[in-house]
Amino acid sequence: MPCSSSNLGGKLLPAVTFELLKESTESKARLGKLHTPHGTVDTPVFMPVGTQATVKAMSPRELEEIGARIILSNTYHLYLRPGHTLIQEAGGLHKFMAWSGPILTDSGGFQVFSLGDLRKITEEGVEFRSHIDGSKHLFTPEKVMEIEMALGPDIAMVFDECVSYPTTYEYAKEAMERTTRWAERCLKAHHKEDQALFAIVQGSSFRELREKSARDLVSLDFPGYAVGGLSVGEPKPLMYEVLDYTVPLLPLHKPRYLMGVGSPDCVIEGVLRGIDMFDCVLPTRIARNGTVFTKLGKLVIRNAKYKNDFTPLDHHCDCYTCRTFTRAYIRHLFNVNEILGLRLTTIHNLHFLLELMRNIRKAIAADSLSEFREEFYRYYEPEQFGQNKN
Amino acid sequence: MPCSSSNLGGKLLPAVTFELLKESTESKARLGKLHTPHGTVDTPVFMPVGTQATVKAMSPRELEEIGARIILSNTYHLYLRPGHTLIQEAGGLHKFMAWSGPILTDSGGFQVFSLGDLRKITEEGVEFRSHIDGSKHLFTPEKVMEIEMALGPDIAMVFDECVSYPTTYEYAKEAMERTTRWAERCLKAHHKEDQALFAIVQGSSFRELREKSARDLVSLDFPGYAVGGLSVGEPKPLMYEVLDYTVPLLPLHKPRYLMGVGSPDCVIEGVLRGIDMFDCVLPTRIARNGTVFTKLGKLVIRNAKYKNDFTPLDHHCDCYTCRTFTRAYIRHLFNVNEILGLRLTTIHNLHFLLELMRNIRKAIAADSLSEFREEFYRYYEPEQFGQNKN
Repeated sequence: MPCSSSNLGGKLLPAVTFELLKESTESKARLGKLHTPHGTVDTPVFMPVGTQATVKAMSPRELEEIGARIILSNTYHLYLRPGHTLIQEAGGLHKFMAWSGPILTDSGGFQVFSLGDLRKITEEGVEFRSHIDGSKHLFTPEKVMEIEMALGPDIAMVFDECVSYPTTYEYAKEAMERTTRWAERCLKAHHKEDQALFAIVQGSSFRELREKSARDLVSLDFPGYAVGGLSVGEPKPLMYEVLDYTVPLLPLHKPRYLMGVGSPDCVIEGVLRGIDMFDCVLPTRIARNGTVFTKLGKLVIRNAKYKNDFTPLDHHCDCYTCRTFTRAYIRHLFNVNEILGLRLTTIHNLHFLLELMRNIRKAIAADSLSEFREEFYRYYEPEQFGQNKN
Repeated sequence: MPCSSSNLGGKLLPAVTFELLKESTESKARLGKLHTPHGTVDTPVFMPVGTQATVKAMSPRELEEIGARIILSNTYHLYLRPGHTLIQEAGGLHKFMAWSGPILTDSGGFQVFSLGDLRKITEEGVEFRSHIDGSKHLFTPEKVMEIEMALGPDIAMVFDECVSYPTTYEYAKEAMERTTRWAERCLKAHHKEDQALFAIVQGSSFRELREKSARDLVSLDFPGYAVGGLSVGEPKPLMYEVLDYTVPLLPLHKPRYLMGVGSPDCVIEGVLRGIDMFDCVLPTRIARNGTVFTKLGKLVIRNAKYKNDFTPLDHHCDCYTCRTFTRAYIRHLFNVNEILGLRLTTIHNLHFLLELMRNIRKAIAADSLSEFREEFYRYYEPEQFGQNKN
């Protein structure tokens, strides 16, 4: 995994480069390789979320075992605890959390805007109170760049303004335009050669705004682009519509990241619309409540019918959990509040998502993604899973 | 690990046999091998506690990795949830919890007597109310044998009456005599060839009672003996005194188990007095509160002085935690209530105890246990750790 691509044959390359391997003939899906200072990632990829410098309930070696290649961590949380300067002192986030693969950090935008009454937005930035101790803080584009450079992930995200759904055209326009101005300020403030800075397209569900956002940001020539402000309350078909007209405006040879989205159905739909990267707390969050993905649909392990079911969670799965333990045992662990229970469901759910990505990549390679999608929907209702942000 | 010794060369052997390898010349310490249907265990041994069919926060493969060879589970808890019949239906406790090594179950005696007002003792047995839902239950020696045979561990314990400290001579005598009568009833009710039944010596801190208990139980010819009713509130020197006069009355060629005791100092003192087996929730319980053993003494990871301490928990340790993570990181995990934090301290503390046992065995082999003890007490105050039962 530790294979830096930042200096090849004496020529200085960008921190992160994207290699487009294949474009599907039947959809906008594509196969690629994301080269980062901490190794190469096959895309489309799902990034497990390690909010507080740990993917909840998982160890780094368990993440490696299930095939996680890149993880996401949250600037807002790390800034508050333990603080970005401490992580810098530790030698950066990779070293601090003992994860040797690539890391992407979000910008804290989503989190501070979610604070509602606890934050105030100005052109300068966002003043907010900590959800932990009420202390006052100011996030500006410059401050967020300082934090992300200190954390040291391979990919940093610009500080954006994420609006919830529904919203007015006027407010969505204002936030989108500010996001572009902030992206410029981030670009100016960012100076870390082994770290790539990705921009975030906003504009809510207004086509005109999304298109303007995409065009303006693309003209600033970022090494990667995210579609933000989705999965914030809008119906899924509307999210897909936004992707339909937004993604084609993004550069073909740069990675495209759909932020905060990661239910199995949304991942498939996102890939079909040309998305390369996903992240979501859904698989880990529902795992801790005892809900798991299986090939044959969702399974709620506390259900009484699994009391003496001595078969694995998912008969089609070869993760440690499914190779080793039964539904009856995992149900018992949840009933008596044992930590091993949520460890096992977390391993399984992340493995499920990562295996889904592996199969999606195979299907793109074999030009069979639409058959794959059809097979998937035999067992999954599009509305079976909601969305979950951090 | 799966090496049954119950049928060797056509001759039916007892389920569990003890091979005495060496007696120390300078103390009563000894080296042995405990052969069980699920493998052989080097003694003296520490057994991690898996109260509810899981060693809290650990997976079976993590237990194997740190060198755990035999674990303990609790009859009282398993009887209540998920129920012994369910575990029997699963194919027994080993299969249910995916642990392929030896298992010992206690008898629930300690737990039901700890229920205080919730239980009533008669000659027949103990009527008690569940600490979970208040439902009424009766544990008799026969019932407990039925449960332990259903659970299917390699070693089952007799149903005993454990009195707290201090107590009167009269009550200690009554309880000890009942324990002997119950041991006889257990022996009659027990009929599982691949499971050994160990007796439990009681008698509080009264020498006469301990001696009578030991003699009466030894005459019943159990394959192994435990010293029970210690670490129930008495000062440590008194516990050692009881061991001093009790252990020599137990058969030389049978395993001796000190129940519920497992702080590092008590383990060393127990071994010096001829004990072969220990169990205790102390290492796992204090780990979940962020307290760890190190070679240089106890360490409380939440302490502010570890905020930017980028060294391992214990510089002398080679467990996964110490090989991979820093004090600063583990402190952060505890501060933000992340599960990985207590996973890492649990791994470390159990590894510490198991490594202590490995070093104790080496010291016995080298006839240097008293030097080993001296070195140990350079860093450990005898009263630094209390005792913890289940």
